[in-house]
Amino acid sequence: MTQQYSALCKGCWQQMHVPIPLRGGFSLPFRAFGIRPSNMNPNICTICEMMFARMMKARTVTIDATILFADLRGYTKLSQSMPAADVAGLLDDFYDRCAAAIWEHDGLLNKTIGDAVMAIFNFPIKRSDHSRQAVLAARQMQKNIADQRARFGDTPDAAGDELGIGIGIHTGEVSFGEFGHSHRDLTAIGTVVNMAARAQSAARPGEILVTQEVHDRAQAELQGSTATDYTLKGFDQPVALYAA
Amino acid sequence: MTQQYSALCKGCWQQMHVPIPLRGGFSLPFRAFGIRPSNMNPNICTICEMMFARMMKARTVTIDATILFADLRGYTKLSQSMPAADVAGLLDDFYDRCAAAIWEHDGLLNKTIGDAVMAIFNFPIKRSDHSRQAVLAARQMQKNIADQRARFGDTPDAAGDELGIGIGIHTGEVSFGEFGHSHRDLTAIGTVVNMAARAQSAARPGEILVTQEVHDRAQAELQGSTATDYTLKGFDQPVALYAA
Repeated sequence: MTQQYSALCKGCWQQMHVPIPLRGGFSLPFRAFGIRPSNMNPNICTICEMMFARMMKARTVTIDATILFADLRGYTKLSQSMPAADVAGLLDDFYDRCAAAIWEHDGLLNKTIGDAVMAIFNFPIKRSDHSRQAVLAARQMQKNIADQRARFGDTPDAAGDELGIGIGIHTGEVSFGEFGHSHRDLTAIGTVVNMAARAQSAARPGEILVTQEVHDRAQAELQGSTATDYTLKGFDQPVALYAA
Repeated sequence: MTQQYSALCKGCWQQMHVPIPLRGGFSLPFRAFGIRPSNMNPNICTICEMMFARMMKARTVTIDATILFADLRGYTKLSQSMPAADVAGLLDDFYDRCAAAIWEHDGLLNKTIGDAVMAIFNFPIKRSDHSRQAVLAARQMQKNIADQRARFGDTPDAAGDELGIGIGIHTGEVSFGEFGHSHRDLTAIGTVVNMAARAQSAARPGEILVTQEVHDRAQAELQGSTATDYTLKGFDQPVALYAA
């Protein structure tokens, strides 16, 4: 990753106009209080992440955001035939490559779960073109993962050609905030999130599937892409998805 | 939850024989350094969670553990017809009820992702009967969720009878530790984790499916349960699962 990290927390600045130093000498007293770059994005701080409810004066807020899910296809199968250390290396690489692509486009790497990642665009770092940023991040992830595939394809006992990621993207209103009281979890929920996850399930390895709403907001990036109807689990009506 | 929380971190004590106060006056200086009860289990501390690699002198360790996945069936469908605040309340409740059951049996609520949770038993809090503890936690979750279903079934516009959780459990060696370098994530990976997730997918609402290995280790709890063969995604051979 060649991108320079921000000296101030972009989240606190954009959401509250409060300058929180993330790096350099000014950040030291903050670090003593546990305020440091977030694990979800190095350009926001742990206040954005952990003290969300106190700062926003609400447990959840409704925001306009773009949600991206990516899943490493072939992982379950591959991990049965690989030594544990190689599987760990594969996931390290996958998470790192996904993180780099998401952060380059100001997204929040909200979750990793086994072979999947979930990213949120437009909060806490605002981008008016967040759907386009998500599409660009998805393409960067596919490119980054092609490099990883090439690397694993080099080893004789790894089925390198089975590796590939499927990505799904949807955009609209989500509930963002803390869920659960005893185990607090900062995430986004709602139909938009569910739809993004389902679009990801429908994507073939190497494919990016986006909804009509993402297509409309990121048209310049999606010239010539035509819609195909998909039947998605949990949704009664067929859903039109575009390959991006 | 009626259970009393521990005054000392059970993880630090069991893994390193170091007493870390979690509650009461002795915990105050520790809290100033960000050492407090973990979000994953109130009886372990953030050292167990965040400083894993430094304490264990390795990024990952191979451990014997039991993995439990639970998924709230009908959530995607239900969340389309419910107001956002109700969906948030539903998830708050689901996470809280899962957390209570997992913690009562010394498990780690490692992940929540949308309508699913992942729990790890036997680390950092050791239990020689961790498979049995996982089965008991799963039953407690089903009971807790039946109460929740009753509550949501009371509202006329919620399809209360569609709610129910599917649970899958597997046990064996997993790689536990930090994955990813730029976005660090503390979790367990390996075939055992994948199998538990697949068993969960096969479970019907209200059902708990466990593998042969869990059955063998928790026999006293599973008298009279017979195996059924399931075809699970990513596994070439049919897998025998027992209803618990």
